[in-house]
Amino acid sequence: MKDQLSEKYIKMAIELAIEHSKEGINGPFGAVITHKDRLVAQGWNRVHEWKDPTAHAEIVAIRAASQSLGRFNLDDCCLFSSCYPCPMCLAAAYWAGIKTVYYAATARDADKAGFLDQKLIDEMCKSDKAKEIDLIRLETVESFKPFEQWLANPNRLKY
Amino acid sequence: MKDQLSEKYIKMAIELAIEHSKEGINGPFGAVITHKDRLVAQGWNRVHEWKDPTAHAEIVAIRAASQSLGRFNLDDCCLFSSCYPCPMCLAAAYWAGIKTVYYAATARDADKAGFLDQKLIDEMCKSDKAKEIDLIRLETVESFKPFEQWLANPNRLKY
Repeated sequence: MKDQLSEKYIKMAIELAIEHSKEGINGPFGAVITHKDRLVAQGWNRVHEWKDPTAHAEIVAIRAASQSLGRFNLDDCCLFSSCYPCPMCLAAAYWAGIKTVYYAATARDADKAGFLDQKLIDEMCKSDKAKEIDLIRLETVESFKPFEQWLANPNRLKY
Repeated sequence: MKDQLSEKYIKMAIELAIEHSKEGINGPFGAVITHKDRLVAQGWNRVHEWKDPTAHAEIVAIRAASQSLGRFNLDDCCLFSSCYPCPMCLAAAYWAGIKTVYYAATARDADKAGFLDQKLIDEMCKSDKAKEIDLIRLETVESFKPFEQWLANPNRLKY
């Protein structure tokens, strides 16, 4: 993407963050998705507004872009975020097939503002035993059955 | 949580995975959320059905539980997933404040069925330069402005 265009879209993401967090309700994060250099979706943090812990700016924008384009694969799209994406949003970008993510502020900047982005990045890469969240495996004979059924179906869609 | 109950809920998550992926459309993943040992939400993969790359079983269940309880904080809830949560879903559990996640199949099991869970876990912990996705920082003077405005607002909500 040309420098001028990428600058335009990253500023748009920052503007969305500023505009929609003025009241101190929505978190100060904004995102924009482009398709072939054109704006296709915007998003901003709506966690409190929607009572939805997954409603980060990037997730909201990815969902909007998918709805707008009528497909879950966004491999011809770029994501612009006012801040380095948290692990949830970064992984969502991977699942969407997005190849390029532009960002402005860093995860440490977010931490300075009272968010836990850098802490969460660190947490994700610890061993499960060292993680703050308890991850408990419950093994049952049925564990692999969903996959077994999936693999046996020649009509299964591609993910 | 008592063993019998956790067994009941993990089986429910597996059953959801089996039931809703029969047609080969929804991916073979199911999730259940409990609040004080009672079922509060169910979810299954709806990526193709909803054309939404973020509609993994756990995300769908977390959003449903938040709607049901009327709050984004689920720190008194447990998540049961038919499979080890991908980084998107695991990070979502952190943001929701969930403290315990039970799972049945492993990320490597998912990979055997053609998904990329283990690969994505590995990818998340590489340096940005080594990641398959391009993460490009665009520094502008406005980068920290959303956070600056946020910190200056004494009425800002807590995240």
